[in-house]
This record gives sequence, C-alpha cells and structure tokens, in this order.
Amino acid sequence: MAEIGMIGAGSWGTALTWLLTNNGHNVTVWSALDAEIEMLKKDREQKSKLPGVILSEDTRFTTDLKAAVEGKDLLVLAVPSPFTRSTAARLKDVVEDGQIIVNVAKGIEENTLMTLSQIIEEEVPQAEVAVLSGPSHAEEVGKGLPTVIVAGAKHKETAEYIQNIFMNEVFRVYASPDVLGIEIGAALKNVVALAAGIADGLGYGDNTKAALITRGITEIARLGIKMGGHFETFCGLSGIGDLIVTCASMHSRNRRAGILIGKGYTMEEAMDEVKMVVEGVYSAKAAMTLAEKYEVQLPIIEQVNEVLFHGKAAAQAVNDLMLRDKKIEISDDTMWS
Amino acid sequence: MAEIGMIGAGSWGTALTWLLTNNGHNVTVWSALDAEIEMLKKDREQKSKLPGVILSEDTRFTTDLKAAVEGKDLLVLAVPSPFTRSTAARLKDVVEDGQIIVNVAKGIEENTLMTLSQIIEEEVPQAEVAVLSGPSHAEEVGKGLPTVIVAGAKHKETAEYIQNIFMNEVFRVYASPDVLGIEIGAALKNVVALAAGIADGLGYGDNTKAALITRGITEIARLGIKMGGHFETFCGLSGIGDLIVTCASMHSRNRRAGILIGKGYTMEEAMDEVKMVVEGVYSAKAAMTLAEKYEVQLPIIEQVNEVLFHGKAAAQAVNDLMLRDKKIEISDDTMWS
Repeated sequence: MAEIGMIGAGSWGTALTWLLTNNGHNVTVWSALDAEIEMLKKDREQKSKLPGVILSEDTRFTTDLKAAVEGKDLLVLAVPSPFTRSTAARLKDVVEDGQIIVNVAKGIEENTLMTLSQIIEEEVPQAEVAVLSGPSHAEEVGKGLPTVIVAGAKHKETAEYIQNIFMNEVFRVYASPDVLGIEIGAALKNVVALAAGIADGLGYGDNTKAALITRGITEIARLGIKMGGHFETFCGLSGIGDLIVTCASMHSRNRRAGILIGKGYTMEEAMDEVKMVVEGVYSAKAAMTLAEKYEVQLPIIEQVNEVLFHGKAAAQAVNDLMLRDKKIEISDDTMWS
Repeated sequence: MAEIGMIGAGSWGTALTWLLTNNGHNVTVWSALDAEIEMLKKDREQKSKLPGVILSEDTRFTTDLKAAVEGKDLLVLAVPSPFTRSTAARLKDVVEDGQIIVNVAKGIEENTLMTLSQIIEEEVPQAEVAVLSGPSHAEEVGKGLPTVIVAGAKHKETAEYIQNIFMNEVFRVYASPDVLGIEIGAALKNVVALAAGIADGLGYGDNTKAALITRGITEIARLGIKMGGHFETFCGLSGIGDLIVTCASMHSRNRRAGILIGKGYTMEEAMDEVKMVVEGVYSAKAAMTLAEKYEVQLPIIEQVNEVLFHGKAAAQAVNDLMLRDKKIEISDDTMWS
C-alpha cells in the first residue's frame, strides 16, 4: 500500500484515483480549483468530467499542494499539457529529493520543443520523472474495462515500482526505458488522428484510414528514432495503440476537428465547433520544426500542416500523398535477392 | 500497357481487374466456373461478390486457363487460399519460364505450415512468385477510394515492376523484399481479429481492442522475425495496417465470429452463423504449431486457441492475459540508465 498524491482532478486524474484506491493505495487528490475540490469532497464524483465514477470514502481532497505532496511515495501529474510547466513550477518548492512524479499528460511545448517530462525535469530537478501512456479512455478505465498501458522511466526499478502500483486484473502495465519514445509518439499521434479525421470527412473509407495510421506511425517513428526513441515503442501501446483508440473514437477532439476540416471547414471554424483545445493542431507545427531540425521527411504531417495553415484543399493533399515518388516499405535494403 | 492474366473472379480479383483496366492494361479474367464467366461476359459485373463495379468493355473472360496465361506479362492469382495449391498445380503446365505470379490471397497451409507463395513456388517452380497485400477492402478499391498496399518480391526489379503496373492516384503501392514477413503477418492477423471480436462480444471497450491489436502484432512479429521476416513489415501495411481494417469492419468474418464467441457461442455455432470460412480459426492452430517449432510465446494466440478448441470461457482468457507475469515493452535492455 502506497501513499499517492494525484496532482489534477480532471477525467484522467479521477479515473486513475479510482483505480489506485481500488488497488488499496491511499490517494490525496489536489486541484487548483476550490469549486472542484468542494464538489469532490461533497459527492466524491467528478460530475462534469467523469460522471458515474464514485471515488472511495478514503480518498482525500485538497487545494493545498504541500499536503498532496509531502511524504508521498509517488506523485501523479494529471494536469492538461498547457498547465504542465506552471504546475511543475509550483511543485518545485514542495517536492522532496528523489520523489517520483509520473506524468500522464501528452504534448510537446511549441516554443521549446520539449516533451512534458523534460519540462518537469527542468522545473523540478530534484524529482525522478516517469510517464504512463497508452490506449486508455478515462471513461473505460473508470468502468473497469480491460486496459493495457506502458510505464516509462529511466531506471528499471522505478518503472517496475510504477508497474506494481498500478497493475491489477483489468489494468495491465508494461515497463519501458524509452521515456522519450513514449512521449514523442503520444504527442505526435494526434496529428495523424487529425489526418484520419480529414479522410473520414472527405468520405474516404477504412482502407484510407488504415493506410494513414500505418504510414503515419512510420513517419513519427522516423523522426522519433533520430531523436533517440526506439522503433518498438512507436509500434507499441503509447504509439500505434493510442492512435488506434483515437482514430476509432468520436471522443477524440482531434479526429472530430479533422472530420470537419475534411468537410470543408477551415481550421479556425473546426476549432470553434469542437470548442476545446485541439492538441494535434499545435503538435503539427512542432512536428514540422522537429522535422527540419532532425532532417527527416514527414509527408503526411507536412500535408496536414498545408491544410491547417496554408489553405490547401484536403482532397488535393491526399492526392499529393498518393502520387509521391514510389517508395520501399522497409529500410533494410540488403534483403533483396 | 501490360497484358495481364487475372486467375480468379471473386470480389478481390474483380476489383483488381477494374483497377488494372483503368490503368490502361489489358486484362483476361479466368474462372473455373462456367456460370461465373457467363455472367461476367454478359454483364461485365460480378453481381454476387462485388455488385456495382462495372468492368471495362475491353476486359476478356475465359474458362481456358492457357488463354489467360499465354503471353501475359503478369499473372495475378486471386483464388481463395483453400484453392491456391490446386490452382497452382493446374498453372504448372501453362506458365512460361520466369512469368511473374502475384498472389493476392492470404493464409498458411495447416498441414505443411507453408505460406501461399511457398506453395506456388513448389507447384510452379518456373514462375517468379510475388505478393500484394495490405488494408484493402475490395468494395472500397472498386469505388476508387484511396488505398495503400505493399508489393513483395525477392527481386527489386520485380517489386518495382508490380508497383508500376498497379499504382495510380487512388492506389499507392510500396515495394518490399520481405515476402515472408508480408505473408506471415497477413495470415496471422486474422487470429488477432478473432481476439478483438471476442473482446467486442464480451462488451469490452476501445481500450481493450487497441491493446489486443498492438500486443497481438507484437507477438506475431516475435514469431515472424524468428522465421525470417522483418519487424518493420509487421508494423507496416500488410501487418498492423490490414489488422486495423479487419478489426474496424463488420465485413470481417473473423471479427464477426469472434463477437459471437464473446457472446457465448461455441466455435462451431459461430462458424455456422457466419456461414463462411473463418480463416482465423485455421490460422490459430497453425500459429501454435509454428510457436512450438520456433520456440516463441504467443500469449494472445494461445488464449484464442484455448477458447476455440478447449472450451475455455472468453472472459477467463482475457483475465489470464491481464494477469500474466509483468513484462517490459521493448526488447533492448541496454536502454535502462
């Protein structure tokens, strides 16, 4: 049984709190918002973001960051990516030496091109930063539906510690040393989800979508490997696994925005309609900057950028992708007879 | 412009004939069935298997195998996998030295554990055998919806020749030397599609299905690499790409049979209900034999076998998968700090 501080009380933080208390751990949930903590204290339910999931009576709730951190065996950082840096900056003063912070958000900071764990390490240098990622709608985890996910950490003991804390008969956790690969795949998959949504909006079929997913992961891997990630990670739970869930679901804002763009909406109109942050739009830009820096070609992500930011017609973008130079699927050229 | 013999007039053969004539090639379609050839000659439409796709007036139809083969630049073998060996045996007498046969069916022969291209090579040793595979519902190809696929051949010139013949603005073809990897992935993915269907039938969510697809391809790759295939191929169009299409579609007999089994039907009841060959049932057995031969663990495919052939309850099989030993996602153990 561990003492856990859950930093953030949105849908994912709430689902993970429910999971961790079911596993017998003591969880203290922190939110910056008084109203959120009041609601949780009163009803033990995140009524607006994860209705129907009732937290255990032992769960504690606080707006006092120190109370959520002090003496905890493990911290889970579950704030949306735009708040990762500011929350990490606040954590700096209260986190103890060597305390483990498991980040569960996804994204790349646009101006610095840093992953979220890199941001946390910069802001909270005394912490040991790890990540948890994979195909995991909070709504399904909160119903106890079988879910498989990956925990990434630099040290094997840390990854295995996290694996032990989270794992149960409906939540399987793989361990991995490839923190960077996990984060790059998780952040950039949203751009491919936008592309898949655009194909849906254009009225294309399952063939097109499967091709975009498969070739999309291939190009993310091409970039990610140059950055230091491992190919297996991009073909794993946090890469293609998470992308499959995103592209299958109408819960995904990236996919929904893509569908609207495929139907002829501009990027701004689509974002207005979806009414929430469409992470893939920011990641698309960051990916192009990374592609230049690491000198790799990202044809699908490039066409998504053309459509989003330069008014290119979506059908023309697909056409240009289809008629690119003829290519070979695998990189090992020694296999030919 | 090439002269092409299409051996087989089912849905996939018909869709490819439509595609190839659109590309300006002359196609002669062969079927063993008089009635099928009569229907095609009269209406130029495969009314029972691919209604709505009208073939060009230049398309020729014949039941004379020699007429479909003689002098052709390329043969496409588009008969269902149970007829691959018998059709190849008939081809032996008419195929010319060095003639290219592109096989487009998928499967592993249960008693010999041979892939379809190995069978064709055994029966027609004078031919150069290649494959074409990937996420490609015939119905969508026949509507001109964008599709991306991979052509595998031992010689680069052959793969690139096939690429040139098939490729157009809605049908993109990658070349690959990894014929074996393409065939193993394409055949075994049906077992994972069965597993994904079972999860659907049990009422599990998108998280579970994405996990089964991702970890399913991982174990197929583990076996396929030992057999001589390349990891990138299993993460490519003929591997995970085709699996994604299969798991998204109610057209898939494997998925539909899985759903019924998840709901409590026995394997026999499910196959009766689906009324067609459920390829994954045979591949599941073949995969276990291969796993023993090559000494690899295939936990998902093993549980599918338990459910199909040993009466294990599907929910218990999922439970046993979730609670296996704790594992590491990537194989490179030197990445830990």
